[in-house]
Amino acid sequence: MFFASDNAGPAHPKVLEALTIANTGYASGYGADAIMDEVRDGIRTVFEAPRAEAFLVTTGTAANSLILATMSKPWQTVFCSDVAHIHEDECNAPEFFSGGSKLTLVPSPSAKLTPDALRSAILGEENRGVHGPQRGPVSITQATEKGTIYSLEELTAVTAVAKDFGLKTHLDGARFANALVRLGCTPAEMTWKAGIDAVSFGGTKNGLLGVEAVVLFDPETAWEFELRRKRGAHLLSKHRYLSAQMRAYLADDLWLDMARMANARTDRLVAGLRNTSGIEFLFEPEANIIFFSATRGLHRKLHDGGAVYYIMSGELDGDDPEEMLTGRLVCDWSMTEDGVDEFLALFDR
Amino acid sequence: MFFASDNAGPAHPKVLEALTIANTGYASGYGADAIMDEVRDGIRTVFEAPRAEAFLVTTGTAANSLILATMSKPWQTVFCSDVAHIHEDECNAPEFFSGGSKLTLVPSPSAKLTPDALRSAILGEENRGVHGPQRGPVSITQATEKGTIYSLEELTAVTAVAKDFGLKTHLDGARFANALVRLGCTPAEMTWKAGIDAVSFGGTKNGLLGVEAVVLFDPETAWEFELRRKRGAHLLSKHRYLSAQMRAYLADDLWLDMARMANARTDRLVAGLRNTSGIEFLFEPEANIIFFSATRGLHRKLHDGGAVYYIMSGELDGDDPEEMLTGRLVCDWSMTEDGVDEFLALFDR
Amino acid sequence: MFFASDNAGPAHPKVLEALTIANTGYASGYGADAIMDEVRDGIRTVFEAPRAEAFLVTTGTAANSLILATMSKPWQTVFCSDVAHIHEDECNAPEFFSGGSKLTLVPSPSAKLTPDALRSAILGEENRGVHGPQRGPVSITQATEKGTIYSLEELTAVTAVAKDFGLKTHLDGARFANALVRLGCTPAEMTWKAGIDAVSFGGTKNGLLGVEAVVLFDPETAWEFELRRKRGAHLLSKHRYLSAQMRAYLADDLWLDMARMANARTDRLVAGLRNTSGIEFLFEPEANIIFFSATRGLHRKLHDGGAVYYIMSGELDGDDPEEMLTGRLVCDWSMTEDGVDEFLALFDR
Amino acid sequence: MFFASDNAGPAHPKVLEALTIANTGYASGYGADAIMDEVRDGIRTVFEAPRAEAFLVTTGTAANSLILATMSKPWQTVFCSDVAHIHEDECNAPEFFSGGSKLTLVPSPSAKLTPDALRSAILGEENRGVHGPQRGPVSITQATEKGTIYSLEELTAVTAVAKDFGLKTHLDGARFANALVRLGCTPAEMTWKAGIDAVSFGGTKNGLLGVEAVVLFDPETAWEFELRRKRGAHLLSKHRYLSAQMRAYLADDLWLDMARMANARTDRLVAGLRNTSGIEFLFEPEANIIFFSATRGLHRKLHDGGAVYYIMSGELDGDDPEEMLTGRLVCDWSMTEDGVDEFLALFDR
Repeated sequence: MFFASDNAGPAHPKVLEALTIANTGYASGYGADAIMDEVRDGIRTVFEAPRAEAFLVTTGTAANSLILATMSKPWQTVFCSDVAHIHEDECNAPEFFSGGSKLTLVPSPSAKLTPDALRSAILGEENRGVHGPQRGPVSITQATEKGTIYSLEELTAVTAVAKDFGLKTHLDGARFANALVRLGCTPAEMTWKAGIDAVSFGGTKNGLLGVEAVVLFDPETAWEFELRRKRGAHLLSKHRYLSAQMRAYLADDLWLDMARMANARTDRLVAGLRNTSGIEFLFEPEANIIFFSATRGLHRKLHDGGAVYYIMSGELDGDDPEEMLTGRLVCDWSMTEDGVDEFLALFDR
Repeated sequence: MFFASDNAGPAHPKVLEALTIANTGYASGYGADAIMDEVRDGIRTVFEAPRAEAFLVTTGTAANSLILATMSKPWQTVFCSDVAHIHEDECNAPEFFSGGSKLTLVPSPSAKLTPDALRSAILGEENRGVHGPQRGPVSITQATEKGTIYSLEELTAVTAVAKDFGLKTHLDGARFANALVRLGCTPAEMTWKAGIDAVSFGGTKNGLLGVEAVVLFDPETAWEFELRRKRGAHLLSKHRYLSAQMRAYLADDLWLDMARMANARTDRLVAGLRNTSGIEFLFEPEANIIFFSATRGLHRKLHDGGAVYYIMSGELDGDDPEEMLTGRLVCDWSMTEDGVDEFLALFDR
Repeated sequence: MFFASDNAGPAHPKVLEALTIANTGYASGYGADAIMDEVRDGIRTVFEAPRAEAFLVTTGTAANSLILATMSKPWQTVFCSDVAHIHEDECNAPEFFSGGSKLTLVPSPSAKLTPDALRSAILGEENRGVHGPQRGPVSITQATEKGTIYSLEELTAVTAVAKDFGLKTHLDGARFANALVRLGCTPAEMTWKAGIDAVSFGGTKNGLLGVEAVVLFDPETAWEFELRRKRGAHLLSKHRYLSAQMRAYLADDLWLDMARMANARTDRLVAGLRNTSGIEFLFEPEANIIFFSATRGLHRKLHDGGAVYYIMSGELDGDDPEEMLTGRLVCDWSMTEDGVDEFLALFDR
Repeated sequence: MFFASDNAGPAHPKVLEALTIANTGYASGYGADAIMDEVRDGIRTVFEAPRAEAFLVTTGTAANSLILATMSKPWQTVFCSDVAHIHEDECNAPEFFSGGSKLTLVPSPSAKLTPDALRSAILGEENRGVHGPQRGPVSITQATEKGTIYSLEELTAVTAVAKDFGLKTHLDGARFANALVRLGCTPAEMTWKAGIDAVSFGGTKNGLLGVEAVVLFDPETAWEFELRRKRGAHLLSKHRYLSAQMRAYLADDLWLDMARMANARTDRLVAGLRNTSGIEFLFEPEANIIFFSATRGLHRKLHDGGAVYYIMSGELDGDDPEEMLTGRLVCDWSMTEDGVDEFLALFDR
């Protein structure tokens, strides 16, 4: 009953096997390994983007920050949702890597940027000459930090606003696969065909040990990205061990299978919770992460029963058993049906 | 006959096994995994430093830059050898992480800082009020980038100069183990007992997939380091896979065994080369990395024979067969005696 | 009828005289001039703070950014009002000087931080371990960017919240004097007695050519400030010309006289406007800067009549004469009663 | 007998007058004043560069750092002499403004870059892929920090090396005028016709209160420069007072007259010193700054006699009267013949 995070579960056994297979003989370092050539080809194929460039890093924060720094100037501001991971959970990494650019937080009730709110935010900047920050790229998270998912229409409408102002777009795809299999579309449709210029293509939350691919649809930005990656100390010398993970991820659609498994368990969980009283979803659960409101008493019962998940607002150890607290449940690829059922059974105790 | 780099060989099989063993069940992320608790204890034991703090990152550049940034201020200058890795091969990462501090290059003929040269360099700064940079930490590489090794006396003499001026000291230990087993001393003797405040304790060049430990003997610097690590995007979510590597590294002295193997192969190589004409060592070979001078013709013969190593100055494909070029040979733990002998045999063809 | 800005009017003649008087013989540079000694003493006297340190820079942005950088760490966030000058009009200078810290915008309907809103914002950060930004200093503008003024009670209540969390406080006093004479209190009462740790003590908007004093009540922060000032290229070599301005500013309460003149003209203007129909104040006019709403038609009439001021929202050259646009009027020390009356007379045309 | 620095003397009375004349009525701020339009035209005329853009800042460090930041990327290195002001006396400002670029120090015995040494330094970088810093702009100081002057041929030969590698060139002209009148050439000949892309055109050391012009021969870099200037807090609101100084500087060749005065006094001083025993010039005195070696005893006699100048190496208050110490003498425009003669007379006491 471990619903704390999708980075707390194990990696897929095939990924471990891939590491062992890669661990023979010598291989050129720093991204010049032969496996990376396969990975690059694989990503181009998956994204139907033969000119795209792909790079690997070990954290989503690195992928996001390095892409945004490459896309922006330090006197600009990055537009993102007010609950964006790049704002809330990266300890100022975007500001650090960019050399001091700002984030403009766009009010996003369902964690999704809306065209109107984005347009209003963009209009609010770069209208005071050199005095205010200049407009920079737009960063979009899919699936969002709150478990909602942009439809292709919504995504395209948001990037269209960015394009109106000549701004570049970044997709934070820490849960890219979870969104993709839910939408049932292709990676191309969810990225460059929808107006996205660069993607943090997440692997870590979806069964890898720690690899994120950076996909740049504009190859002219690649060299700057490479220099920024090295300068940020994110170019691994024994790079083959990143390549091997990503090759295994793409092989035989393992990445899609794992996302489907995570989503299926989440669906089972949501269905169960809908049959339960005392629970309110704070966002429509569409991916593999659920935010729900319940009384402290109920949260305590669940925790006492052995469920592991985070309380996002308030303290579990407070006085009032009736106070409403927010809980977060995440299913990763390794979550079992039994695990879900066991958790749901706690409600009936 | 692959002598290109000690980050081109495979990881030790025990390290791969450790990953597989660690890959079960759920584990808290971001360094809160139970294996990391063991690693921390292990490092404290190895270094005889019960109050030390230890952290893991995936690259030596990250370890170096984050430590130096934690130790310094952006208006300071870091003192290092003029061939220091932090100067030559990190694409300005130290300047980036520190927010713009300088490096003062101390002339170091054998790649080792000498007390006199260091003192002279330190005296050359912080003598012009606010106009020049202020004195910052001293960074020392052991074994050096050129394969030489500080004796404990030399090391202590260098740190004593730093202490005279109240400056902190950093040890870039990308090849820590290779130096340690050569000196036959303890990790404590080569670090805090010799006046070192913080260590980049290398693992990647010595048989891991990609893990370096940061060892801070002053625990009061730990929290700032942690924040800098996160802000630098170097805190891995599925941290257990770093912890597992480092646990395996320390277990049963695997790290020392691997360094001994690398050094022994280098010794065999050096002994063979000393019996060869046409070769001149540019630095006394003391660790597992050798710089030698030879004619282009000889380098070509070796390459044509299948040897793989870097030409550090000049082009292999030049005209004059008599021009002297510098070659670099590195042995990692996985180098075999046969590999060495096969290479040496090329000279007699 | 020039109401565009208080940095558009002339400097006071006494200030020009002071420059000429200072322009004889040799003087040590970089702040070591004898006049600066007098200025330091003068500021200590004015602020009743014998241990305070004082420094001069040429822009308010430099004063603000250098103080905030000295007070904070790059992984922190600075709390300020959502209309703070440091956020809106400094082109990311605070982020630049701090090395990438964030600004957390506190909703402030009257441009004044309230204790509750500030507390809520502070509680919203530094509650996610290393993941989110850490809490940094609180920056308060007095008089605010919208022409409102904190009472001493309000000011103290805000700084008390900061103190509850151990956070430092900065006062952006670009219009310090205008607020001070309105409150009728002492500089000490409006700063350190009210819980302020450092002040950007404005001179440029109040009759100088271009000098702001930085007043640090904690002298232990002074050396870092000095290094940051030099590194920011804000230490003037012929510093005596800054010192001379500030000495003249403080002499015979010239600074207070100029602020009183600016405020008195604003009062006359406000009184006149209150007798006018078609005008609505967006903020209660308390200092020397007024924001008002009027139809495009009225704004056009005023502009056509020769009034010079900024339209802050919307375009003067739009179609609809009934659309409401925001105008901004600022009186500096040199504004005349005739200028005000002439402007008011435009309404009756 | 004040030879300490050319920023210790007074500003020219015409400059003070210009300030007073400019101090009437209202003027748009932030560089939009009408005087700046005249200054821009004046600079274009003086430099025979109708497309050049010109901006004013208050310190040479700001001019240098902002230009270099505009010309470079944070992962590059700036090539400069090993005694360059940007390296020695700007407290890491170039590294700060550029976001962490490096300076590569080119050995320059007479403080002048030579084509061979520069070429060698350039070849030493950008030859290790992403590992080392990439090649950035070349910064040249004219007149140099040691009082030597590049001939036009020397200057062109140095910039030709930069152009061979496609690198941009910056001229640090803190003593631009002193060099120019010595060479007897035109500003165009000493800048863009000699291959210079941007100039820090000094005024402060040559009779202004504190103004340096930035001249960008490539107008496409202007907007980035403007944003960097604002973000660096170097855009003055009451900009007219900078403009007025620069207008006065250019009017009737005041700037050239002042430089000729400073140089003539230096010539008189050098001629006198050549007739003196016990003095040795460390660099050929060509501009208005002299470095000389003399015994501690002689330095003491001069200081005791009332001469004011800096001892650049060693301590005046040491024991050995025969030890050789380096002194520095600077003449500014206001130095008198009597001042020089009085100083020279001290030698005969």
